[in-house]
Amino acid sequence: MGTISSKLASLGLTLPGPIKVPPGIVLPFRFVNIRGEHAFISGHGPVHSDGTLARPFGKLGRELTVEQGYKAARLTALAILGNLERELGDLDRIRAWTRVFGMVNSAPGFNQQPLVINGFSDLILELFGPDRGAHARSAVGMAELPFDLPVEIEAVIEIDP
Amino acid sequence: MGTISSKLASLGLTLPGPIKVPPGIVLPFRFVNIRGEHAFISGHGPVHSDGTLARPFGKLGRELTVEQGYKAARLTALAILGNLERELGDLDRIRAWTRVFGMVNSAPGFNQQPLVINGFSDLILELFGPDRGAHARSAVGMAELPFDLPVEIEAVIEIDP
Amino acid sequence: MGTISSKLASLGLTLPGPIKVPPGIVLPFRFVNIRGEHAFISGHGPVHSDGTLARPFGKLGRELTVEQGYKAARLTALAILGNLERELGDLDRIRAWTRVFGMVNSAPGFNQQPLVINGFSDLILELFGPDRGAHARSAVGMAELPFDLPVEIEAVIEIDP
Repeated sequence: MGTISSKLASLGLTLPGPIKVPPGIVLPFRFVNIRGEHAFISGHGPVHSDGTLARPFGKLGRELTVEQGYKAARLTALAILGNLERELGDLDRIRAWTRVFGMVNSAPGFNQQPLVINGFSDLILELFGPDRGAHARSAVGMAELPFDLPVEIEAVIEIDP
Repeated sequence: MGTISSKLASLGLTLPGPIKVPPGIVLPFRFVNIRGEHAFISGHGPVHSDGTLARPFGKLGRELTVEQGYKAARLTALAILGNLERELGDLDRIRAWTRVFGMVNSAPGFNQQPLVINGFSDLILELFGPDRGAHARSAVGMAELPFDLPVEIEAVIEIDP
Repeated sequence: MGTISSKLASLGLTLPGPIKVPPGIVLPFRFVNIRGEHAFISGHGPVHSDGTLARPFGKLGRELTVEQGYKAARLTALAILGNLERELGDLDRIRAWTRVFGMVNSAPGFNQQPLVINGFSDLILELFGPDRGAHARSAVGMAELPFDLPVEIEAVIEIDP
């Protein structure tokens, strides 16, 4: 068992299964696209352990509080880690979290996007530590997101090829 | 004639000329910025064959249906391929579609961004095949886009230098 | 004194200090994340010379005119250059401005995002010249931005390692 997997287990966290989108939706892209020493991670949202999209849906500042948004961003980190584990075999192959782009479904006047995306960053830093987990980041307010997801996060990471 | 150019011809598709923005607008950047084995592609919108911005303008969920948005995303792919052909000389130099960021001008409540950006992904996959055309992708809802474009897409690709 | 620093001085420009966010806000990421020959630059907003966020806050098309937005984008360039100078030691290590992603806090109907982000691009091109300063760019309209910033810009650059 890898060190990241052990840490996840020690935190009582399990990674969700493959993402299940609503019936009839075709998503003709790769959730993780590996090119050399980089993995390009498509926009992910929060999912339950069975891979179905996790409620609550909607906008920060309307349907969701900052605390609920934080939790959604943390679930999004787990969704990404689940897909990365299936692609990489072992999460210990992750060398660096290079760039994180955090998109928050934002009602008019909601301006606390960083506090929401911290749910992602905090977990990544807890699992990978301050050096390997360090990342550049933007956390910004979208008009709408697919399936009314409250949060969508894309990223680029460096991997051992 | 390269294999991608042949495929375009066999589909009856022609690539548009250089993008013409409205008079008085200066865009001081490169639509395609080549750095080593990567080409960084600026945000493009749909254009007619003469390079002028293609109507209809406006938002998905208000001025445009999903079908019209799908077509706009397909035209955006052709706009990008036109600029790439002028920069690269031959589209066969494209090795991989690494990352695609699909931005959809979204009216309140419109949440079908993936179905719109599929107009881009479907054409890229048809032209480049499932391996070379594979890409990471986000498809998200913007509050506004320049010139009221319904769709704007940026990307990173890998090329033979 | 490096050539870029000299140019800044000859334009009468000084780089601001480290960004100071409002009290109680924790931003657990790096404003500049260096990986090999690339620096990944987190979303930055306009700041005063002491590093505090620069007013006016709000949206283009509501609280800010295009001219004010242009100035905010120019201040954002200086904020980024300040952080880069602290990280790199010397701005002459910057080899290329690879990708710029310009996000404009946009009121309904505001569609002149490129004219705003030109405040960033024009200064970068003035300082680095047409080749080294060349970049791919998107300039798009966000629903909301943190702290009601009018402009937030992220970027990827190439550096001498």
